[in-house]
Amino acid sequence: MTEKQPASRIRRSPEQVRTAVHQAVIDLLSDPEGEGLTIPAIAGRAGVNHTSVYRRWGSLEALLADTVTTRLERDSPLDDTGSLRGDLISWAEGSVASMGTPEGRALVRAVVLSMPNSAQAQDERGLHFRRRMRSIEQIRERAEARGEEAPPVEQILDQLIAPFYIRAIFGIDVPTTGYPELLVDRLLGGVRGPDPA
Amino acid sequence: MTEKQPASRIRRSPEQVRTAVHQAVIDLLSDPEGEGLTIPAIAGRAGVNHTSVYRRWGSLEALLADTVTTRLERDSPLDDTGSLRGDLISWAEGSVASMGTPEGRALVRAVVLSMPNSAQAQDERGLHFRRRMRSIEQIRERAEARGEEAPPVEQILDQLIAPFYIRAIFGIDVPTTGYPELLVDRLLGGVRGPDPA
Repeated sequence: MTEKQPASRIRRSPEQVRTAVHQAVIDLLSDPEGEGLTIPAIAGRAGVNHTSVYRRWGSLEALLADTVTTRLERDSPLDDTGSLRGDLISWAEGSVASMGTPEGRALVRAVVLSMPNSAQAQDERGLHFRRRMRSIEQIRERAEARGEEAPPVEQILDQLIAPFYIRAIFGIDVPTTGYPELLVDRLLGGVRGPDPA
Repeated sequence: MTEKQPASRIRRSPEQVRTAVHQAVIDLLSDPEGEGLTIPAIAGRAGVNHTSVYRRWGSLEALLADTVTTRLERDSPLDDTGSLRGDLISWAEGSVASMGTPEGRALVRAVVLSMPNSAQAQDERGLHFRRRMRSIEQIRERAEARGEEAPPVEQILDQLIAPFYIRAIFGIDVPTTGYPELLVDRLLGGVRGPDPA
């Protein structure tokens, strides 16, 4: 394979390159008539050598996981609202809104789409979830520092994260209002027991 | 494209053809070195004309949705155990076990994998969920005939189905014992309130 010249020769910081590569992934995903989603196509669109992309991310799977996770982290910041319930609702609202856009849906599906059934791919698919879970860990730690009881991470995965991911992946509509609150209240209701009347 | 001769010329019933085509999908999915998952490849392996496959299923998406749903319906029969809790656990146990095999995981991921972001594909992806939801509706109707209160279908989707689908899709391990019971008890606990002490 011949090495393509970068489309842009302006010197960019590693962070600028990362942003350009992420944007190229998103552009290619959003363009159904576009080239296939391959590292050479992504590198060409971002104006970087594809060898740099391989060196930095290692595989298309890892690059996709990094792109989708970075986008979701940007859209669901870890606000300290003063309570576990508020923090989880804020985080889930950002995630649900981000995954509700055509771009967000395409990104989430791309994480699944890109993965063959190999063990290595499974690890890289896991990357996305491990990073999402770190956000959840931070929210839990903040709650515990406040003296609040927090459900285990696995329960947050099952009761808060799984419902809106599965809806994004399968194209099932999310209830228009109050969905993050509904999921969080079910999650916390199951841990705290009923509120005193 | 030239029309391939069917590999087998034995006359088969529509149901036998359907089974052979489903099996060809599963075989091709399970073989990472195999041909791509296309209707001509599936038809060739099943020994039928690809025109019959197009005529019967209309699209690769619809065929995949039919294959995975038929397999999951076979593996999660609608046993009448005498209670809503028992019926849901029995159904979920079958689904979790089926989706825990490499073949089952490949099938579930294929439903996602095969779908471009078009509106039509979204409808066909929806096919799978609509058929799964019909099973849930039958379980709910049986419960109501017994005088049991049953949670709404959307809540069963969020609290029972989403958790094990998301784990199958992202390759996150399911707890080794009692996972279907755990999910069902959380689901029903949220509806019935706490049991009397």
